[in-house]
Amino acid sequence: MKNARKHAFRRDKPLRGRPPGPRFRRPPRGDDNGVILYGWHTVTAALANPARHIRKIVATENALRRLADEGISLPVEPELVRPDAIAARLSPDAVHQGLLAEADPLPSPALADLAAAGIVLVLDQITDPHNVGAILRTAAAFAVAAIVTTARHSPEATGVLAKSASGALEWVPIVIVQNLARALAEMKAHGFLLVGLDSEAADDLSALELASPLALVLGAEGKGLRQGTRAVCDRLACLALPGAIKSLNVSNAAALSLYIASRAVAS
Amino acid sequence: MKNARKHAFRRDKPLRGRPPGPRFRRPPRGDDNGVILYGWHTVTAALANPARHIRKIVATENALRRLADEGISLPVEPELVRPDAIAARLSPDAVHQGLLAEADPLPSPALADLAAAGIVLVLDQITDPHNVGAILRTAAAFAVAAIVTTARHSPEATGVLAKSASGALEWVPIVIVQNLARALAEMKAHGFLLVGLDSEAADDLSALELASPLALVLGAEGKGLRQGTRAVCDRLACLALPGAIKSLNVSNAAALSLYIASRAVAS
Repeated sequence: MKNARKHAFRRDKPLRGRPPGPRFRRPPRGDDNGVILYGWHTVTAALANPARHIRKIVATENALRRLADEGISLPVEPELVRPDAIAARLSPDAVHQGLLAEADPLPSPALADLAAAGIVLVLDQITDPHNVGAILRTAAAFAVAAIVTTARHSPEATGVLAKSASGALEWVPIVIVQNLARALAEMKAHGFLLVGLDSEAADDLSALELASPLALVLGAEGKGLRQGTRAVCDRLACLALPGAIKSLNVSNAAALSLYIASRAVAS
Repeated sequence: MKNARKHAFRRDKPLRGRPPGPRFRRPPRGDDNGVILYGWHTVTAALANPARHIRKIVATENALRRLADEGISLPVEPELVRPDAIAARLSPDAVHQGLLAEADPLPSPALADLAAAGIVLVLDQITDPHNVGAILRTAAAFAVAAIVTTARHSPEATGVLAKSASGALEWVPIVIVQNLARALAEMKAHGFLLVGLDSEAADDLSALELASPLALVLGAEGKGLRQGTRAVCDRLACLALPGAIKSLNVSNAAALSLYIASRAVAS
């Protein structure tokens, strides 16, 4: 925990409610790990985010007309293509709506830049891009301060994730850490209450006393939380489910947890 | 509504909490619209469901050992194969865990067989098999009485849906209707309160007075509820979301709606 003390957590500048600003560290210039963004909501949200650097835009005639109709200006001259030219760059089931952008990845804030306020979602080895995307979208809907994760996605997976997130990739800062247990300990030292979700826990999340700043920690489906993650949590809690099946899709579990925690923290 | 009166809704036999029994109509014999089920939870749940007719089981040595270890008996002699023989029958990203079954589709109960009790989820043109599967899983977790839908899935889509449902396909009766507005009117005549979810509605679902029997009606992402569906609902409600994004993945919206409605109906 010595390292944690070196960083002053910023309490005066919560990250909530707007895209991360330029004070986050940009990835080093010249790296070529660009991301592919596709779909209407995903690309227009990226265009509206001042922190997102767009390298290239590929669009159909219809998409360009719609952009013009909505008064959306483009930072680069778009390349006009037919729909199948976009489809050819994506997996067969990708719904691109005639719009694709190549962009720099967003800068990832450092853990020390995270305000000790609100609710943070911590993902313990949740990697499926559909699930992470849906979690991001719900996190944005609940004004989550940030997502903390160890997962780095390939450019291709980032495209799927961004599409599932439906624009939320631009809204929720993602803090990428090397060691999750150490990151959680650092957050605890700065006042976060750490609550791990575990379908076998004795306590129901809605019965716990929760307070902000709060970290909700979710594990991957099937595997759950790792032992080191579990050990550092202040409390473990389950979601009380009355039916025959006792575990949910991880994005659905995240949605319920956020709903319960948001109300508890607000009240 | 004349037709609705011909059917006596069964109030004495709720469908909740167990797989649909043999009183449901079997599809006509000799039709060959079998379904492919894969993955451990999906196939073992099908094996445990007396209403599910298994035609064939294809398994790896590891999966067969695990079935034997867990004392699961098989209704047919399994075909022993290597993992790649199963993978070759599925889409590249399918996680089959060495186990695949060919089965008859489950019988679909008639609307008239539905008990006027508990909570029913009504899906208005939600077709994505990942989303429908996740909704089924959450519906089973909340002991939903049934799902009412117009959607019929291809055998391939049913496999994806069943995998996402993680066994819940065996637990939640799916009522397939031709005309959703007419089905909703029939349900209303039998006492169901019809609440349509609409992100632009003025009322928050958690502020409504809800009572059982309750039908929660969800529309497809982007399109929302169709006009005819909307018109027949008793009430329209939104999910109050504090953040920058105001619409959720449809399975996350279903999870939150079910959580809110379950608590309201139980209290």
